[in-house]
Amino acid sequence: MEEVARGIEASLPRFSPRVGVILEDRPYPVYIGKGVFTDVLSLVRRFSEPEGVFALVDANVLRLHGEAVKQALGNAPHALMAVPPGEGSKSLPFLEKVLSEMFAHRVNRQWVCLAIGGGVTGDLAGFAASVFMRGIPVVQVATTLLAQVDSAIGGKTAVNTAFGKNLAGTFHQPLFVLSDGAFLHTLEPAQVRSAMAEAVKYGVVMDEPLFSFIENCPPFDHEMIVEMCARDKARVVALDEREGGLRRILNFGHTLGHALEKATGYAVLHGEAVGAGMLFASWLSRKRGILPEAHYRRIRQVIGQLEIVPASLTLPGGREVGEALALDKKSAGEGVHFVLTPSIGDVSVEKLSEIEVLEAYRGFADEYARGL
Amino acid sequence: MEEVARGIEASLPRFSPRVGVILEDRPYPVYIGKGVFTDVLSLVRRFSEPEGVFALVDANVLRLHGEAVKQALGNAPHALMAVPPGEGSKSLPFLEKVLSEMFAHRVNRQWVCLAIGGGVTGDLAGFAASVFMRGIPVVQVATTLLAQVDSAIGGKTAVNTAFGKNLAGTFHQPLFVLSDGAFLHTLEPAQVRSAMAEAVKYGVVMDEPLFSFIENCPPFDHEMIVEMCARDKARVVALDEREGGLRRILNFGHTLGHALEKATGYAVLHGEAVGAGMLFASWLSRKRGILPEAHYRRIRQVIGQLEIVPASLTLPGGREVGEALALDKKSAGEGVHFVLTPSIGDVSVEKLSEIEVLEAYRGFADEYARGL
Repeated sequence: MEEVARGIEASLPRFSPRVGVILEDRPYPVYIGKGVFTDVLSLVRRFSEPEGVFALVDANVLRLHGEAVKQALGNAPHALMAVPPGEGSKSLPFLEKVLSEMFAHRVNRQWVCLAIGGGVTGDLAGFAASVFMRGIPVVQVATTLLAQVDSAIGGKTAVNTAFGKNLAGTFHQPLFVLSDGAFLHTLEPAQVRSAMAEAVKYGVVMDEPLFSFIENCPPFDHEMIVEMCARDKARVVALDEREGGLRRILNFGHTLGHALEKATGYAVLHGEAVGAGMLFASWLSRKRGILPEAHYRRIRQVIGQLEIVPASLTLPGGREVGEALALDKKSAGEGVHFVLTPSIGDVSVEKLSEIEVLEAYRGFADEYARGL
Repeated sequence: MEEVARGIEASLPRFSPRVGVILEDRPYPVYIGKGVFTDVLSLVRRFSEPEGVFALVDANVLRLHGEAVKQALGNAPHALMAVPPGEGSKSLPFLEKVLSEMFAHRVNRQWVCLAIGGGVTGDLAGFAASVFMRGIPVVQVATTLLAQVDSAIGGKTAVNTAFGKNLAGTFHQPLFVLSDGAFLHTLEPAQVRSAMAEAVKYGVVMDEPLFSFIENCPPFDHEMIVEMCARDKARVVALDEREGGLRRILNFGHTLGHALEKATGYAVLHGEAVGAGMLFASWLSRKRGILPEAHYRRIRQVIGQLEIVPASLTLPGGREVGEALALDKKSAGEGVHFVLTPSIGDVSVEKLSEIEVLEAYRGFADEYARGL
């Protein structure tokens, strides 16, 4: 009896999903926890019995966590390719290199692709997996806080073109998402701040408890924040897998954010740009009389306290922002679906003309220069 | 009364679908007929009210039917880009050019992409549409007999890589397919022969009446053949949209066909290669004792009578074919799903090792050299 009991216990999964993305045709889990990455292969085998694993690994992760990666892949048939950090890797020419590497290693449709890294690696690997022989499965192993709270969940893949970020891509839902806190201690403070911008976004648009948690509990319990954000993202994705409407609430702060990134030639970090974008969206919400002053102050306060937007940031002029706005892929022909907030934890999407947004931006930039 | 009747008549659609692709989530029609292309815009409007139309047009079609294309697009907002004929256009660098052209014309998610051409244009445009801003709708206007009987239906998109044809791509079902016989009279005889190879394929694997029609009725009624093939393709695609299993019956003749194309550096045309591949698959079916001699002779006879395989064709050696086989994307890890036929109008798929296929190929090539 004793032995049987031990046998059963030994065969129990060490890790259970903490969040589920409930898509109609194929729901998938998000595994969260310190150490969960060591079990990545046995997690893969819960879903399929691949002939091999093709791992695209962020070069920094490979440098800092190379041993852990190699141990996790063990002696399963695999090939490994490093992805240079930075948006430069999210290009069609680099995609071609990835596909060539896959063919050179005789990857076939019975293989699984593993994305181990942050948003760049995840977007690129997801795209490569979705087009390689018209699609093989991908697992998203998120090693940055930003990927863990946001980008690894939802199946969006992308590369950049000369005309802007993420302008070519697919929807390719992963087999599962894995977020291991063990990767987080090697992040730069700027990367953590960037991620917190997205966490604040989830708080503002749909999760007042998360917002309060962030407001009141520094130093942060990242695992708790990852779980709360993953749950929020999963809810939105389940309701609107292909960004037909609802999912655009997650663009809160991003309309201006993307324009700022583009207008500054990507000199400003994504999180900084989104932080400024959230300030603008909140400012505009208050200005249009839908957001109470007290909520506006709390949002400004939390963005300030997390140092999301650097004090040195100078906002670009209206003309540059206007040009960048016109190319934003979320713009719906005439006008922009602009995400506003009527209170912390709630959203309202309004269709504004580019001119309305620009005029508001000019007012905001003036006030910003004098100190909000 | 008279007037009302005329009014109703005028508002009736001039063209009705002749074939439907009954996918669960979004069925779509295939419009077939001489002159149907002139109505392409009103057909588009049955499905959506696009802000504009981005047309990728085969350069030969533009040269030979430019006026018809311009008249059909009329004064609707549109942009037009020529696609140089040949597989060279199905590359990631050319895809990047297409995407840039789309951005330069400020195409957005409310536009529709029109593919006007044969397989190259259809594959490329379908891929571009599927990844542009993560997907806009595409309409497949098939101007070659090959595209009309086969490639325009089913949602497969692709580009080539250095490692082979169609190795990167997506599944992106069109809004609808349009096959206008008016385009066919400008085709080269070789293009028609190539298409007939695929028509024979449908006859052999699933449609004895089509096979008999082809056998007995030259000169061909292309419209009838297009309709019968479209119906066959639609049936297969509806049952297996993503090539999970059944759809691979359409690879009849293609396993060797692709290997021949690759082994000869694409000196042999697709239809010629498939023709030789069908001869081989039939020869192997007879050799394995599943195909009666009389059926084998009928298949050989029809391929000969249509002059699908040029008399001058010299089959490449076993080593070249072996190397090409190993990279065929339909190969399932160890072994090849090989499509055989037990009788005209029927198939059987067997998993053969690469070595079995190669040995059989050597025997076939010997016999072929002496005259089958």
